[in-house]
Amino acid sequence: MKKLIGNAVVGQSGGPTAAINATLAGVIRGVKENVGDGAIKTLYGMKNGVEGLLQERLVDLTAFFDSEEKIEALEHTPAAALGSCRKKLPKLHEDDAFYEKLLAIFKKYDIRYFFYIGGNDSMDTVAKLSAYTKEQDYDMCIMGVPKTIDNDLVVTDHTPGFGSAAKYIAVTLQEIIRDCAVYTIPAVTIVEIMGRDAGWLTAAAGISRVINGIAPDLIYLPERHFNKEEFFEDVRVALKKHPNVVIAVSEGIRFADGTYVCEGFGVASTDAFGHKQLSGTGKALEYAVKAEIGCKVRSIELNLPQRCASHIASATDLAESVCVGRAAVKAASEGVTRQMMTIVRDSTEPYVYHVEHSDVSKIANQIKAVPAEFINDRGNNVTDECARYLLPLIVGEAMPKYRNGIPEYLIIE
Amino acid sequence: MKKLIGNAVVGQSGGPTAAINATLAGVIRGVKENVGDGAIKTLYGMKNGVEGLLQERLVDLTAFFDSEEKIEALEHTPAAALGSCRKKLPKLHEDDAFYEKLLAIFKKYDIRYFFYIGGNDSMDTVAKLSAYTKEQDYDMCIMGVPKTIDNDLVVTDHTPGFGSAAKYIAVTLQEIIRDCAVYTIPAVTIVEIMGRDAGWLTAAAGISRVINGIAPDLIYLPERHFNKEEFFEDVRVALKKHPNVVIAVSEGIRFADGTYVCEGFGVASTDAFGHKQLSGTGKALEYAVKAEIGCKVRSIELNLPQRCASHIASATDLAESVCVGRAAVKAASEGVTRQMMTIVRDSTEPYVYHVEHSDVSKIANQIKAVPAEFINDRGNNVTDECARYLLPLIVGEAMPKYRNGIPEYLIIE
Repeated sequence: MKKLIGNAVVGQSGGPTAAINATLAGVIRGVKENVGDGAIKTLYGMKNGVEGLLQERLVDLTAFFDSEEKIEALEHTPAAALGSCRKKLPKLHEDDAFYEKLLAIFKKYDIRYFFYIGGNDSMDTVAKLSAYTKEQDYDMCIMGVPKTIDNDLVVTDHTPGFGSAAKYIAVTLQEIIRDCAVYTIPAVTIVEIMGRDAGWLTAAAGISRVINGIAPDLIYLPERHFNKEEFFEDVRVALKKHPNVVIAVSEGIRFADGTYVCEGFGVASTDAFGHKQLSGTGKALEYAVKAEIGCKVRSIELNLPQRCASHIASATDLAESVCVGRAAVKAASEGVTRQMMTIVRDSTEPYVYHVEHSDVSKIANQIKAVPAEFINDRGNNVTDECARYLLPLIVGEAMPKYRNGIPEYLIIE
Repeated sequence: MKKLIGNAVVGQSGGPTAAINATLAGVIRGVKENVGDGAIKTLYGMKNGVEGLLQERLVDLTAFFDSEEKIEALEHTPAAALGSCRKKLPKLHEDDAFYEKLLAIFKKYDIRYFFYIGGNDSMDTVAKLSAYTKEQDYDMCIMGVPKTIDNDLVVTDHTPGFGSAAKYIAVTLQEIIRDCAVYTIPAVTIVEIMGRDAGWLTAAAGISRVINGIAPDLIYLPERHFNKEEFFEDVRVALKKHPNVVIAVSEGIRFADGTYVCEGFGVASTDAFGHKQLSGTGKALEYAVKAEIGCKVRSIELNLPQRCASHIASATDLAESVCVGRAAVKAASEGVTRQMMTIVRDSTEPYVYHVEHSDVSKIANQIKAVPAEFINDRGNNVTDECARYLLPLIVGEAMPKYRNGIPEYLIIE
């Protein structure tokens, strides 16, 4: 493709992460550093992803980011600074008016570069836009830039955002394990971790085992069927070893018949308003262990902080996120289009990676599960191989700046 | 009292905090620095508080802490490094054998100094032991050293451990508020914070309002009755201002009739085993807002990390905790006994404090509530005065040392 001269637009989509703004900062840095020798003139940010783009809610990021200080603050700001959306684009030819409207906006603002930072659904958006602009013969570089704490995108070794969430989980579990160790009476603590379809985040709970030997006693991922009887047996065996058993479970674990554990155990729960309410997976297992084993049981749902705790972000993750954003600008300015940026791992010890890109249409709408060799035979823990593979991604502490005890974030008005 | 020469014992009791080991480190430093000119020879640590003392599970801390590095690591280790207990001592003369056994152990190990780090129940232990040894005419310096995240001890301006928990809450809420701001659809997020009887920790959610203007829209403390109708009205008004409403509630909020909110809303809930289960306060309000207002609602229980997240401990809190522990040794070696150490605030801006001590029998078994002037008229937020009062306690970041991405803790074997 010929070298395109024009403006660029960047958006963020899907669930927030602690690193999605670092990727945005990478795109801004790429444009500011003029990596394409003048190819990109103005970089617009779309507010709330394609939803805002359709309403022409655009902000001139080239003008807004007029200092290194602002870009650095952005790198340490959690959640999507441009706002996000969960809009799924219509299939091609299902709603021509929709795509025509987008194309008109691209032409109006002379937009020749489109960067979309997101996960699986966002790559679907990138793939559809790629197909449409190609069909319309509108010259445009359309690039997907991966981010998801779930780490479930295929082709890329891992996804920006995952390392910071994994670090939050690993550090928080170290603290919870110490907290649970102070009493002598038998107690079970169940920690519920995000990840409906893939167990990567829950697996991160096991990384510390190859560092200091301290990790949850049991870890259950959605990649393996959850067996109630085996689980109770596992808990009983663990309680014989020491009184304070800590268990990490993925929110997405299911029984062999496909029922989610949170449904299977908690389905009869009705609130004061008469509505059926699903308790979480951790809560369901808490009730089950109380009923079956009878010891003290507590459940903890790590919840939103997993994806937004930028105060304990992984320095490795933030650096990679910036790098991937910048590389997307560089590739696009060289004419690359319809691709998602990928991280390629060259070596684990020492950890070495480089950035490439790959056909986005072959990435969207697929899910990368934790491979079989990363889970032990019993299906109640991760292997050392898994822990060693994940370890480099949580290394380094990326502290935000603090003022009066709280972090300073960058807010794009 | 005459200057006592002998050994000392130190214990930790009650719920863990991120700062309770900093106080232990302060006691160790005091003894190591020989503040009493040879008054204290060996410092023993009791494992699991008085429970372990009764079993003579003692560790020689003077010998164990043979390097500055170890003491520093202890300061950044969450939860009670000596283990804890929740043992309530019998009333005097209710169980003479119990106290005689303790006295025999004191004599056996030549223990003339007793330091007990804990909250309300622990001060009850200190008060009872003080009364007993006085009655027996056994010369002993018995000192209570305060720690509780709840900040509900009287006389002292605030308690070591509170500042770190407050900082965790303030920082986490900044992140949650950013996370919730990314979407445009109306949504309510309810964050449940610890504190059954006093609302100090929940009040900490409001500190940031006087720093950067960003804080939860609504804050409900147990010091005020919870009114369902007013609450729904508050939420509706907040939703009119912006789509992403964040609410902080104390786990201990009650209706005017004394019923806990978690009981009043969630009492009909029954799990799959047929057991009545109380959902948390946040969950109960989540169901209530869903039913009443119908928008998207999420609840988050901050749970254990509030009291053990040493990775985001307040530097002010840790420094004070060390200071209070050291001062306890100094006071005891000067003959002070039957007292709890207290923090006296000299000034808020700039923040200046000093350490004193006060009769423990007048502190134990009382609860310091958030004062009326710290809560607004409507009872749905804290005042700026409250936020400014709490602010100094969260200032400064006390980072632990990290290795391979996770913190290094000190474990006393």
